[in-house]
This record gives sequence, structure tokens and C-alpha cells, in this order.
Amino acid sequence: MNAKSAALAEALVPATYVQQGLDAVRGREKLVMTLLSQRRLPDDGWDDTSVELLLHTLSAMDSNNFRGSAGAGEREARVFSALVAHRHFNLAHGVGRSGDVAAVQPKAAGSSLMVQVANALARDVLRLAGMRAVQAALVLPVATGMSLMLVLQQLKEAKPIARYVIWPRIDQKSCFKSILAAGLTPLVLANILVEEEGKKPGGYLKTDLAGMAALMDEHGSDSIVAVMSTTSCFAPRAYDSVQDIAKLCQERNIAHVINNAYGVQASKCVHQVEVAMRTGRVDAVVQSLDKNFMVPVGGAIVCSTSRDVVDRVAKFYPGRASATPTLDFFITMLQMGRSGYRRLLDERKQLAAYMREQLEALAAEEGERVLHVFNNEISFALTLGTFCSNAKDLQEKSRQLTSLGAMLFSRGVSGARVVSCLDSKTIAGHNFNSFGAHHDAFPVAYVTFACALGMQQNEVDLLVTKLRKTIHEWRAKQSRS
Amino acid sequence: MNAKSAALAEALVPATYVQQGLDAVRGREKLVMTLLSQRRLPDDGWDDTSVELLLHTLSAMDSNNFRGSAGAGEREARVFSALVAHRHFNLAHGVGRSGDVAAVQPKAAGSSLMVQVANALARDVLRLAGMRAVQAALVLPVATGMSLMLVLQQLKEAKPIARYVIWPRIDQKSCFKSILAAGLTPLVLANILVEEEGKKPGGYLKTDLAGMAALMDEHGSDSIVAVMSTTSCFAPRAYDSVQDIAKLCQERNIAHVINNAYGVQASKCVHQVEVAMRTGRVDAVVQSLDKNFMVPVGGAIVCSTSRDVVDRVAKFYPGRASATPTLDFFITMLQMGRSGYRRLLDERKQLAAYMREQLEALAAEEGERVLHVFNNEISFALTLGTFCSNAKDLQEKSRQLTSLGAMLFSRGVSGARVVSCLDSKTIAGHNFNSFGAHHDAFPVAYVTFACALGMQQNEVDLLVTKLRKTIHEWRAKQSRS
Amino acid sequence: MNAKSAALAEALVPATYVQQGLDAVRGREKLVMTLLSQRRLPDDGWDDTSVELLLHTLSAMDSNNFRGSAGAGEREARVFSALVAHRHFNLAHGVGRSGDVAAVQPKAAGSSLMVQVANALARDVLRLAGMRAVQAALVLPVATGMSLMLVLQQLKEAKPIARYVIWPRIDQKSCFKSILAAGLTPLVLANILVEEEGKKPGGYLKTDLAGMAALMDEHGSDSIVAVMSTTSCFAPRAYDSVQDIAKLCQERNIAHVINNAYGVQASKCVHQVEVAMRTGRVDAVVQSLDKNFMVPVGGAIVCSTSRDVVDRVAKFYPGRASATPTLDFFITMLQMGRSGYRRLLDERKQLAAYMREQLEALAAEEGERVLHVFNNEISFALTLGTFCSNAKDLQEKSRQLTSLGAMLFSRGVSGARVVSCLDSKTIAGHNFNSFGAHHDAFPVAYVTFACALGMQQNEVDLLVTKLRKTIHEWRAKQSRS
Amino acid sequence: MNAKSAALAEALVPATYVQQGLDAVRGREKLVMTLLSQRRLPDDGWDDTSVELLLHTLSAMDSNNFRGSAGAGEREARVFSALVAHRHFNLAHGVGRSGDVAAVQPKAAGSSLMVQVANALARDVLRLAGMRAVQAALVLPVATGMSLMLVLQQLKEAKPIARYVIWPRIDQKSCFKSILAAGLTPLVLANILVEEEGKKPGGYLKTDLAGMAALMDEHGSDSIVAVMSTTSCFAPRAYDSVQDIAKLCQERNIAHVINNAYGVQASKCVHQVEVAMRTGRVDAVVQSLDKNFMVPVGGAIVCSTSRDVVDRVAKFYPGRASATPTLDFFITMLQMGRSGYRRLLDERKQLAAYMREQLEALAAEEGERVLHVFNNEISFALTLGTFCSNAKDLQEKSRQLTSLGAMLFSRGVSGARVVSCLDSKTIAGHNFNSFGAHHDAFPVAYVTFACALGMQQNEVDLLVTKLRKTIHEWRAKQSRS
Repeated sequence: MNAKSAALAEALVPATYVQQGLDAVRGREKLVMTLLSQRRLPDDGWDDTSVELLLHTLSAMDSNNFRGSAGAGEREARVFSALVAHRHFNLAHGVGRSGDVAAVQPKAAGSSLMVQVANALARDVLRLAGMRAVQAALVLPVATGMSLMLVLQQLKEAKPIARYVIWPRIDQKSCFKSILAAGLTPLVLANILVEEEGKKPGGYLKTDLAGMAALMDEHGSDSIVAVMSTTSCFAPRAYDSVQDIAKLCQERNIAHVINNAYGVQASKCVHQVEVAMRTGRVDAVVQSLDKNFMVPVGGAIVCSTSRDVVDRVAKFYPGRASATPTLDFFITMLQMGRSGYRRLLDERKQLAAYMREQLEALAAEEGERVLHVFNNEISFALTLGTFCSNAKDLQEKSRQLTSLGAMLFSRGVSGARVVSCLDSKTIAGHNFNSFGAHHDAFPVAYVTFACALGMQQNEVDLLVTKLRKTIHEWRAKQSRS
Repeated sequence: MNAKSAALAEALVPATYVQQGLDAVRGREKLVMTLLSQRRLPDDGWDDTSVELLLHTLSAMDSNNFRGSAGAGEREARVFSALVAHRHFNLAHGVGRSGDVAAVQPKAAGSSLMVQVANALARDVLRLAGMRAVQAALVLPVATGMSLMLVLQQLKEAKPIARYVIWPRIDQKSCFKSILAAGLTPLVLANILVEEEGKKPGGYLKTDLAGMAALMDEHGSDSIVAVMSTTSCFAPRAYDSVQDIAKLCQERNIAHVINNAYGVQASKCVHQVEVAMRTGRVDAVVQSLDKNFMVPVGGAIVCSTSRDVVDRVAKFYPGRASATPTLDFFITMLQMGRSGYRRLLDERKQLAAYMREQLEALAAEEGERVLHVFNNEISFALTLGTFCSNAKDLQEKSRQLTSLGAMLFSRGVSGARVVSCLDSKTIAGHNFNSFGAHHDAFPVAYVTFACALGMQQNEVDLLVTKLRKTIHEWRAKQSRS
Repeated sequence: MNAKSAALAEALVPATYVQQGLDAVRGREKLVMTLLSQRRLPDDGWDDTSVELLLHTLSAMDSNNFRGSAGAGEREARVFSALVAHRHFNLAHGVGRSGDVAAVQPKAAGSSLMVQVANALARDVLRLAGMRAVQAALVLPVATGMSLMLVLQQLKEAKPIARYVIWPRIDQKSCFKSILAAGLTPLVLANILVEEEGKKPGGYLKTDLAGMAALMDEHGSDSIVAVMSTTSCFAPRAYDSVQDIAKLCQERNIAHVINNAYGVQASKCVHQVEVAMRTGRVDAVVQSLDKNFMVPVGGAIVCSTSRDVVDRVAKFYPGRASATPTLDFFITMLQMGRSGYRRLLDERKQLAAYMREQLEALAAEEGERVLHVFNNEISFALTLGTFCSNAKDLQEKSRQLTSLGAMLFSRGVSGARVVSCLDSKTIAGHNFNSFGAHHDAFPVAYVTFACALGMQQNEVDLLVTKLRKTIHEWRAKQSRS
Repeated sequence: MNAKSAALAEALVPATYVQQGLDAVRGREKLVMTLLSQRRLPDDGWDDTSVELLLHTLSAMDSNNFRGSAGAGEREARVFSALVAHRHFNLAHGVGRSGDVAAVQPKAAGSSLMVQVANALARDVLRLAGMRAVQAALVLPVATGMSLMLVLQQLKEAKPIARYVIWPRIDQKSCFKSILAAGLTPLVLANILVEEEGKKPGGYLKTDLAGMAALMDEHGSDSIVAVMSTTSCFAPRAYDSVQDIAKLCQERNIAHVINNAYGVQASKCVHQVEVAMRTGRVDAVVQSLDKNFMVPVGGAIVCSTSRDVVDRVAKFYPGRASATPTLDFFITMLQMGRSGYRRLLDERKQLAAYMREQLEALAAEEGERVLHVFNNEISFALTLGTFCSNAKDLQEKSRQLTSLGAMLFSRGVSGARVVSCLDSKTIAGHNFNSFGAHHDAFPVAYVTFACALGMQQNEVDLLVTKLRKTIHEWRAKQSRS
């Protein structure tokens, strides 16, 4: 409502009331001004009305919402369904241009502005979480796997004769497939099993740095596009030693990409990435939008210590893309604010400690333990050593353990993964023994649980209750058979 | 987006694009300015984004949406459910104050502004439809029946010793009950049956003006609060002769309230009301929001040739009320625009002619006819003379006819009313013979159909098809029994 | 999704996943079943999806949403604006029929079902809050003032020769106007000022029971329609002694209506109403929807120990009405659940104690006090005895005090009321000295603050901070002038 | 509402009304059943309520919306912002799994079902448009450029030693970049200019089939991954001769990918693709979701005559993706229905003829013409031969022409492209003379306009009016300078 409208309004409603109302409107405009000048998360989250006002304003700036214009292109962002238009706030032009997914669109000033700010917020929120070395960030409208592929493709373009990617084993398909999809050849580096002295079978898995150096020597720096390390991972795999890898890469002039899929939420993980960026070579770090920022699946952030890398990835992307992942992130950052994100990080940290305690108590009851995994603050592995004694053969043993997972799932525990250490899998010609365990010979079966951002204490309680009950049922069933 | 934000945006998106986007935003602000200065329906309907932008701005002007304020009253418009808040665009203070349903609320400048403009739009749309004598209009957050009651109560307050309301019979409960609810006594005036010469039983019903004058003489002007006439009605009742009634009322100093429930959509009806207002006495005209303006049930417009009457009704209303009927009307008027409402009126007029043709064709097939009802352009009565010959007694005859109505309903024809002319009904001690027929002895049974605003040609076709089919089934059933 | 669809889905998605998904769908259907069978608030609040599923199902049951039907009535609930249709979940038929606002509508089975359940939930939530004597409740689509008027009109209908309503003075316009609007004559009963011994000027106001009995004797039971007592009120007025009034009414055969506008949220208030209903005569109790249940303004609940009274009010209402207040209440009760409502009640109670403490601390600093008002748990009055010494005359004194209220309002404290005890007001010919104070000669000026349902502790802190600052500014300004 | 709930409802609302309401609910369930069994577009579009009911049901089947479950994974689709959750109907798990973007997700049965049906609808709508040879289709959550890249990457995987893609020149960046992004080398094939005898400079561009065969011979089939032909293109480029190319590819065992970006809406284009698929080799056809189906930018459909190709593309995609493009398409297909899509296609065809007429009339006025481009039914090129005579040099000439485009854009004509035939551009080391013209030496400057799906006649009128006015202004400006 501009000044003239305000004056007109005062003919209908007393000026003092109109002015107070306008003060509030101006207050919201000031939020926008602060956002555009600081390009940081707001200190406190915005309410729905503020967000909707801004989105409708941005939407009004896109050509498909101009009144009295004639659309004579092949793409004019006409939307058939009102339901669909509504859910996009009439922002229909997507993001990017043919040549650059981060480029502004002449037809869509509003969408473009949103994208630019979203990228700035991405940079800010990563720095807020502790990755202060980040200088540039880009919200990609594809998830982690595709983002890793794009980064690798771009690195390969810069080093056309190289063809290998050194990949410390992590039993998760997307990242492995991202290497293949980029037209590159993975060099799988086995993890080192660190067993705890005097304890029952168990231990944790860490990066084989000497092995990595040997691989580099073997193939030569010129033939290696990059090392792809992983921070976020299921216990008992520890985060890769990204600081040491970064140093190795720096020394040997090999690019280094960190798959930090859901690591932003974990302070130790963030710290390691930060140190790696500061003290060694890290070309790009990729993190999932949904896992770290509580938005629907579909986007990722690529960040770097240099704007150059990020720009090259943006320019590499062929064509336009959906604005949805960016928009979801944009809305969420505005509504979360710095205080909201900090609170979520704190709550997760405390809840993870609580979850470990609860699981340890249950483990003690069952004669099992929660593996102590150096630095993994998100994922916990509860051993299942006493769960397989009766099985007559490996297949039966595996089947029995799998049935525990199925029971948990059908009782409403989602995301728990039973790893029997007995399954093998072949992906695109590469064979992985004991798939799921990140190691050919992990000494004990286990089940993992994650304490991810946004989890609530009552969910942990529910989890442990259901787990206890399911274990009892499972044991009862086994003893009957 | 203010000028400073625009300048900031130009650091992110090229200035030419930002400026073009802002032109569009300014264009929308200009719509608001035009609305506030002209207080008329826009020439062309607004799109969703324009409406939502305005509503979010108004919402931001209400105190419950202020950031950083402290609500220390007993009513601070806090809303528990996000679903509920969302559907109200966070406008939660309702309309009015303790003393006046049209008064502005200090805590709710945005809502108040909306209400003031909505009332201006109500005046405008009535004038647009042809009621150019209207000087003031008020959107009441109650439907027609309650609105009539409020008008009568207010008239009674001004003439405390009077207790009667002359009411030309119309067999519709709400308006009759509105008289009783106002604590007044209805004087029911029977209609005159005008039969067409040489035609089969039928005819139409018109106001008994001589009878009305006689009633006035009998009870004396001082004891009569008002005449409540009705324009919108089901065939074969014609619109009341509001012009003549207005003259009678003027001569005898009796108030005159017109129940114009769904008459705004019919040009002849509007014309009669207009002439009555210009040439005689009409204190207030009440029209339904949902029936004339395609919004959900819940509101009405009271209008008058003088602001005074409307203001007194507003001030009579005890307390606050829901903003929803006003808001629905406000949104709809903005989205319809003058051109949209005119188009709807034209389409309805043409479709009514088409519907009459189709019904006449069907009537001819069945040996029936569509009654010719002087000036009723909305409702059509198809005689059912050949539908009751077999019945052994009145009750059975009535039952049979009723079953035709039930069959139509269950086959997806809603709103058709079978009037057997055989039922009687007692409402609050008043007995009505042949209830539904508006007359004690209408000579033939019939079924009515209305062609109301927003109906589509395919609905008329569907109606006639279903009607034909149902009649055949009904006759077959009757001949079997 | 029915069984056949589920079977078909299993051709596309593995049966186990479909079944688990369907279990969840069935779970939601079970919520609906439980709701329909128990007709009580759910133990725990429903999530958005459950509510939206139910509303879309109900909406599909209304004729305006039937596919392939022909609407031939004058009211077919066609909605022009998609924005409007959407915000009503396509429920457009309103509530009630011509004859009864609680009646089911043949064209709108879904809306009707919603209304019936909402009324049952109204009964349940009142009982949950402690009014266990309530046997029937009705959600009225009009706010408290209009609801009181409807109740009075209905009582008057049953006692046509009576014309008086005894009304212990409460300086709030709506309820007073509701008596006038019902065509009745208020007998204003002055309150008794109870001063605290040895304290500075102050005290509280209580019902003059002897005076009430005298009024009854004076006019005679036959001429008195009802006593309208008030529970919810601003300090220093105490709740009316509804138990004693109920006894008086019972003895003398006079109806008793309790204006319990925002009293459901206060346990002592609820308790008094409950005892009054159990031990004396209470014909109806009226409470605001927005103030007690955190929905937008627009509705009220009338309840009674007998279904009969409630039914008669419903049947008295002339015509249909907006479904919005009922729908908002329905959604909110489902989303709040019993646990949610209990939690809100508890939080309010604790917060009120905290607010009193904070205000008392501030009062001590300023040489004022928070009046001790017997049983008023919601509203607090902070004396302003030291705020008016400099004023040269009463008018100036009043102006100065009013300016404090305006300063609070403009600094974002809404709902605080400064009562100078110096203003008089005439409403419809009745003069009220010292309007706002509920008493002709309250001995000290004061400002009131309410701790209403949904208030948060940070709001109380903000209130006290702003209040302290504003007082200092006000005093500084006064000392300068 | 299940049978038990219905029975319970009948205690509250008469059974006949409940039953009729339930019939309607059942009717909607039958729509779902028909959809799941036929997996085709519904004959007539669904209304909003039907769509929302289905989406809320699907949403209820996803684990993040289960009540009483415990999410113990690293990705549990928790959504922070209610605005975000709402716009996704609480579907937050995205589409696909690590291994396959078309795979079902155990945690998300509802989303998975939606995806499966959406893919079936994609197949159906392409067949409906005339591509009856299509046997399998996949909605990809990335736009055309990325989709082409994925198809090429997958083809390359199957023919690892090949590295070339033959690409008949089309001056649009995305498709060219998709080849580079796939790590392949484009072989640019110049188009043949076909001039019209006896006409002013002009003509159209067609595929150089002989040149293509020569390129194949030159590099050898084994080194060529694919031909990427283009159907949808701006005039004066004609659709590529996909039938002949398909035959060449078949003969020489080279894959053939058709970039049919916005070709589904044009019947001749569809026919050529259909014949190519039936009579030659077409491995995959890629079409844009937004341009052909009126949804926001972000998705594409890959289709093929064999399920195998489509499955391989799906399996190639590394990781999960946003569900938004698929969901938008799903909703839109349901709401459009077969009749709606056919109507849109017909309207576009008629409007394109009208647009050509209007442009020809304007061209005649200006001494220009609309180029006759064999078979291009969407895009029209209006020559600008008389627009450049005054320019002193090429740069100035180009600048002048460009200014015409800028003027059109700033006057609200979006999508018009002025091609000066004077600009050259270098993309990733490849130089294109006269970029935008698809040819090194097109003989005349021109401006193109498209008549795309969803355009309205008033937009064409507005376009021509604005164009005429802008030309006059431009000429006036030029003559002044």
C-alpha cells in the first residue's frame, strides 16, 4: 500500500489506525529491505503473512503474472490448473536460463531475485552452522546424487584426460552411481576396521589414508579427477578424515569433493569440513537440502571456498530447472531464522545424547552394546550379536535378521537399518561384499538409528519402546521356530 | 517492495528486469489506489495474485499480525489452528464494534478498511445492476432472514407502538419468521389468482393492492410498522407490485421493506425496485449475497435511498460479527469486476429464455404447459395436471406427486420443487393452506425450476434430459401400480 | 481409497507398501469413526492432513460438488471465485434451513454432518472445561451480543407479556444493546463497591443481591423476562454471584441467562456457572467462540442443562447462516484435542499468576497496586492513583489519563484499557456515570490487562517492559507540561 | 468415509441424505478406481475436490504422515515450514530411490503410486496427441536439457567407445550444452536454406540429409553415439526431417534422439515423430512438461517405443529427486482430462491460423512478409527487410534491430525474438555465425512469434496491436535520428 493509497484509506478509516497499520506494513517491508541488503537469514523467523506478502510481490514481478501483456514465446509459463498455480504462488518460470542454472531470467525478475537471495542464504546458513570458510554457495534443484555428478562432470571438463575418482567405500548407492553417471571410473578404497580392545566384536571404520596415498601413486595425479570423501554416514562408519584427505589432495594436485549429505546438522562434522577447507584442498562440498534444512526432497547445496567453482557448476547445468527446491529452501530459511536454526541444532545435539543413553540401556538389557564410533554424532549402531546363534546357515541367518527390520518397519519404526553383514551386492559391475556394512568383514551384525534434525524426544521414546517390544516378539518367534 | 528494496534488488538482478517487475507491482498498487479512490468494482476482474497481495497487506495492518506487540485484551484474535488462520488470511478480528457492525476497529485497520470498501462495492454493484436510486448499502454478516428481522426491529424502534407487518403471502419460511422474530405480528395478505382465458388450469398470482389498502385502513397506519413485499419468488407467483405498494406506503406513512432476496440478477425485477424507490416509499431493500453474487451462504446487503436507514441498521446490530460474508463478497467483486458481472447477468438472461423454450418443448410432449407468469424471469412452473388422475384420495395424490420430486432429487436434479397444492402447514400458529403454492386454491399442481446466476447451458440440457427421463419412469411406475 | 483401488494399486507398488499406506488411511478413517461415534474432542489433536481429508470428504457430500448434477434451484451454492471456494473447502451451503439454524440441509449432507458434530463437540468441550451440567450446546453463527439477543427473544416469546430484563451493570455495550435489540427494557442494577480496609482507594465490585430481589419484588415476576448476569468481566468488577442469582430466579420463576463471554477459560468462573446450573435456575449460558477457543470472531455457543432451550433458540433463528464460525470451531476442536485444550487452560492459569506478580512488582515501583478482585482470574486492574494529581480540572485529568492509553496502544500494547472514572456515556437513552468502571463512583482510576487463552510468557514480559517504559515517558511528559 | 462411519452419520443426518452424499463420495472413489485400472487421462477433467481428496489420501500413505510412528532414519521427510508442507500436500519424500528415479519408495507408498500413475498418464497423453507408437514414458524431474543429457549419457554407457553426436544446427543453448555435459563431442550439421522463387529475401531451413550421411561415413557408426534431431524450433527453421533421419540411423546402427521440446502440441510435428518411430530408428523422444502441458518449468517426458530404453534412463539417474514436476503433471492431467487436452490442441491450431493471418496483414502494411516455413505450425517469422536500411555499419544495424526487441519487451510483448542475422556467439569453443538464425547466412533479419498451447485470441490481438504500434514508434525514432 503506497502513500497515495494510505491517504485514500484515511478517508475510510481514522488516520491513526491506518498509520499504525501502515507502520506494520512498513515493518514488513523493512524485513524485505534488511533481507536484500544483508542477504542473511533473519535473526528471528518470519511469520506466514510476511513470507506470503513477499512471495506474492515476487510473483507479481514475473511476466506470466503481468496484466495486459502478450506472451508470444514458446514458453510463457501459462499454468492450466489453479491448484498447481496456487501451490507455486504463480511462480512458474523455474530457475536459470539455457546457459546457467543460476542466471537471471529477463521474463522472471521476481523468481530470479528469489534465486539470488536463496543462494546468499545458503552461503549464510552454512557459515552459521560453522562452515565459515565457505565463500560461495549454490542451491541446485537436484538432489545430492545428481549434484555430485554435476560437480564431477565439471571437474572432469577441467581435467579432460583424467578418468578416476578415489572413493573411500560408503555403502550408499547414489554417490557411487554419481561417479559412473559422470562417465568416470571409481577406485574403491576399503575402510580400516578399528576394533576396541577387550570388547565384544564391534569397532568402527575409518579412512585408510595410507591406502589412499598409494592409490594416488599407483594411478598418478593426472589420471585422477578427484577424491570423493564422505562425512555423513551410518555408524559404525566414521566420517572420512577429510582434513588429511584435503592435505593429500593439495599435495598431489587432485580435486577433492566432500559428500556432506546430512552433515551440516552435526557440529563435529561441520568442524572437520571447515578445517579441511581452511588447511587443505576442498573443491566443493555437497549437502542435501531436505536432510539438513527440513524441506521436501529435491535439492542440494554446492558450496566452496571460491566463487569460481560454484559458478562453473552453475554454468555447466544444461537448461532451466524447477524452482521448487530453491523456493522451499528460501521460505524455510525465512521462517526458521538464525535463532530457529540454532535452536534446532542444539535440540538435535541434546537429543542425540539422550538417544544414545536410551539405546545403551536397551543394549545392556539385551546383552548387546551401542558401538562407539569415533565422531559420528548422528547415527548409532546397536549390535545384534546375540540375534543369530540359532541359524542353520548364512542365508537363514540373513533372513532372520532381515525379518527383524521388516517387523520394525511394519510397527512404525522407519529408517532403522538392519545390517546382517551377510549380503553382497553388485552395482554396475562392482561387487561389494557385506553390502551395507561399508566393509567386507565387519565382525558383527547390527541395526542403525539416526537422530536427525527435527526429531522430537517423544519420537525417541516411541522408538525405544517399539524396539524393545519388537525385539521381545522377535526372540519369542525365533525360540518357537 | 519499496524504493530502497528495489535499489537493493538491482544489485542482484539487472535493473531493467527489476524495473519491469516493479512496474507490474506498481500496476497492482495502482489497482488498489483506484479501488480506494473510486470505491467501485474494477472494470475488469482482478487476478488471484492481486487479490492475495491486497489481503495480505490488509492482514498485516491488523494488530493480531503485528510483530513485537503485546496483546493484553480479552480478545486479541489469536488463532489456534494454522488451517483456520490460513483460510482467513489471518484476518481474525471480525467486523464491527460493540456499538455498530459497520464501525471501524482500532485494533484492525486492515479488516476495517476492507469492510468500508466492501460496503461501497455493495452500493456500486447494485447501481450497476440497475438500482441507481441506491445511495447507501451495507453488507450484513447474516443472511436474508436475519437481515429482514434487523430491519424490522430497527423500524419498530422508530415507531414503538406499531406492531403489524403487512405481508403479501409468499410461501417461504424465513421471511415470515423474520417478522415473528422481530416481535411483530404479520397480517397475511392473500394473492390474487389471474387465470389465463381459454387455457387449461393455471394462471399466476399477483399482489392484491386493494386488499392491502383495506388492511391499512382497517388497522390504521399508526399500528403498522411496515409492509414487507417480495420481488424474488417462485413461479407462478409474480413479483409483488412494489411500485404500487411504494405509493400506498408513501400516502399512508407506512414503512416499506422489499425482500429482494435473489432479484438483483433479474433486470425486470431490478427495474421495478428502482422505480419503486424513485416514485414511492421504500425504506430498505434486502438482497442475499449468495444468490446474487455467487458466494457461500451467510450474508446479505441492506440498501436504501438514504444513508440514514442503513446507518441505523448498522448501529442496531449488537456486537461484532464474522468477517467472512463481507470478505467473500469483497474478493468476489474484485475478481468479477464490472465486465464480469455484466457478462453473468447477460448469460443468465439468455439462458433463462433457453430454459423456458426447452421446458415448453417438454411440456408439449407431456400435455402440460409452462405457466406464463407476468414478469418472473427466474423461476418457471411446469404444470403437472396429467400427473394425478389415478389417485384414489388427496393424500395418495400428494404422496405420488412428492415421489416425483424425490426421484428428481435422487437423480441429481437439485432445487426442483413439486407443489401439489394439497399440503397445508402451520407456522407459529398461522395456518397456510396449500403451502408452497402461495395461494389457498391454486388450480393445478406444478413443479418449479429456477435459472439462477451462474447456471450453465449444459446444466439446463442435463436438467431437461433428466426431467424427461424421470417423468417417463414415474409414469411407468404409476401405470404399474 | 477403497479395497478395489487398493488391489489395483498393488499392481503398481508392492503390496506390503500399499498395505502399510492403507493402514494409515484406515487409521485416519478410524479417527473419523471414533469422532462420529463418541462425538467428543479427540484425545489428541488431529494433524492437518486428517482434517483436510475429512473436510474434502464432507465437501464431496454436498450437492454443489456433485459431478453430473443439475442445479435448478434459486440457491445452488455456486461460487464464482476459486479463492473463495478454496477457503471454504467448497462447503458453500451455509448452515441451517429456513426454519431452524441447526436443521440438516437435504442438499448438503456433508455440511449438515459437520454442524451436528460441531454442536456435540461444543457440548463436550464445555463439559471438559468443567461445566458438566451442560446437556445441550449449539454453535451459533453470530457473536455473543446477537446470541444473547436471540436467547432473550426466545425467552420473551415464551412469556409474551413480560418486558424487563434485570441487568447487573457491566460497562460493555454489546450485552446492553442485546436487551434493547430484543425489544426489551433493561433494569440496571448498580454494583456494590467493596473496599479493602486500611488500603489505599480501590476495592472491587460485586452483585447487589438484595437490590436484585427488591427489583424483582418491585416489578413482579410476571413482568420480568430474565436476569442477565455476567461472569467474564474486567477487574475490578467481580464475576456476578451467579449461584445466588440462580437461586433467586428459581424461587421467583424468572429466567436466568448468563453472559459467560470469555469465562470458559477460567476455572473458578466455570465452577460458579456449574454450581449455578446444578443448584438454581439457569436457562442458558452464552460464551464467545473466539475468546474461549481461539478462532476468528463470529460465533458463540449457547448451552443449557436442557436440550429444549437450545432447540428453541435454534428454531427461533430465521433462515440460514454462514457455516464459517461453526467450521472454524470444528477444525479447531479436532486439531486441539482434549490434551491440547487442557494444556492451554493450564498454561493460561499459570501465566495469569505470573502476570499478576509482574504487575504487582511494577505497581510497587510506582506507588500503585494491583486491585484484589475476588475471583477474577483473567483481568487485572492496576491503580493509577498517582497519575492525576497535576490536572487542573476533571476534563484535563481525563485527557491526561486517556493519553496514557493512547501511548500504550501506539507502542504496541493492545487491549489495555485506561478507566479514568470520569467519563459518562448515554446508550439509547440510558445514562452511565463513570462509564467503563461499572460503578458511578469508583474511587480510583486504573488500567486493566487481561491474561487470555493463548497468551505467551514473552508477551507478558513484553507487556510489562513496554508498560514500565511508557509510564516513565508519560510521567516525564507530565512533569514537563 | 467407510461403511461404519456412514452408519454413524445416519444417527445425525437422515439416511437418505447421507446416502446421497456417500454416493457422491463413492463416485469420486470410482474415479480413482478407474484411474488406477485404466491408467489413462480421465475422459473429463476432475474438479479440485476430487484431486485434493486423492492427494490427501496419497499423502496419508506416506510414512512422514503416519500417526504414532518413529522416524529413525537420516531422511524422514520432516518439514519445518507449514507453508512448505501445505504446498506439497505433505508429500515430502520426493521420487525415486538411490538406484532408480522411477523406483517405488518403501517409506512413501502414496508418492510412489502417484509417480507410477503419472508415468502411465505421460504415455497416455502422448498417445492421445498422436504418438501412438509410444510404449513407455517417464516423467523426469529435470527439464529438457538435463533430460537430453541423461539420455545421451545412457546411450554412451551402452556404446562406451563412441564420442560424437551429430546435431543439425538449432540455435538454442540447452540442447547443445546437453551434449557437452554428457561428455560428448557435437558434430554440427549446417541446415540447408530453401529460398522461395521470385520472392523477396527469405526462405526456410531444412535438414541436410546428404550432409548427415556424409558425416556418418566420415566418422563411422562406431564412433557416433547418436543423432540428436529437433522438431520443435523457431521459424524459419523447419522441423528436422526425423523420418529420413530415423531411416539413416536404422541403416547405420546409430541411436537417434529427438528433441521434441514443445512439439506435442503441434499435430504435424507429432505425426512426423510418430512415423519416424514406426518406420525408422528412434531411441528416445524428449518433450518439455511446461511447454506442452501447461505446468511450471521443471520436468520433461522421455518416451520410447520400448520400455527398455526408458527403464535404463530411470536407472541411470543417481539418487532421488523432487516430486514437484511429476506432481504438477499428475494434477494437471487429472484436471485437464482427454476432452480438455483435445480442446486445447484444437484451440491452439485454430489460433495459430488466426495469428498467421493477423501477422500477414501487418506484414503487408509494412512491406514485409511472414515467411512460409514448411510444416512449422507454432512459430512464425516476420521479415524485417525494411528495418535496417539507414544503418551506417553492421554493429549499428544490429543495435537498431535489437532495440526493436527491447521496445517490444518493455511494452509487454514477451517471447518475441528479433534475429538480426548479425550476431555471432561462441559456446564452449564452438563458434556460431549469425547466432539465433540457425544458419550462417540467412538472407534477411526477422522477428519470431509463437502461438503456444494456452494462448488466447485476445493475446494475439494484443500482440498485433502492440507490434503495430511499436513498429510505428520505432520507425519514427529511426527517422528522427
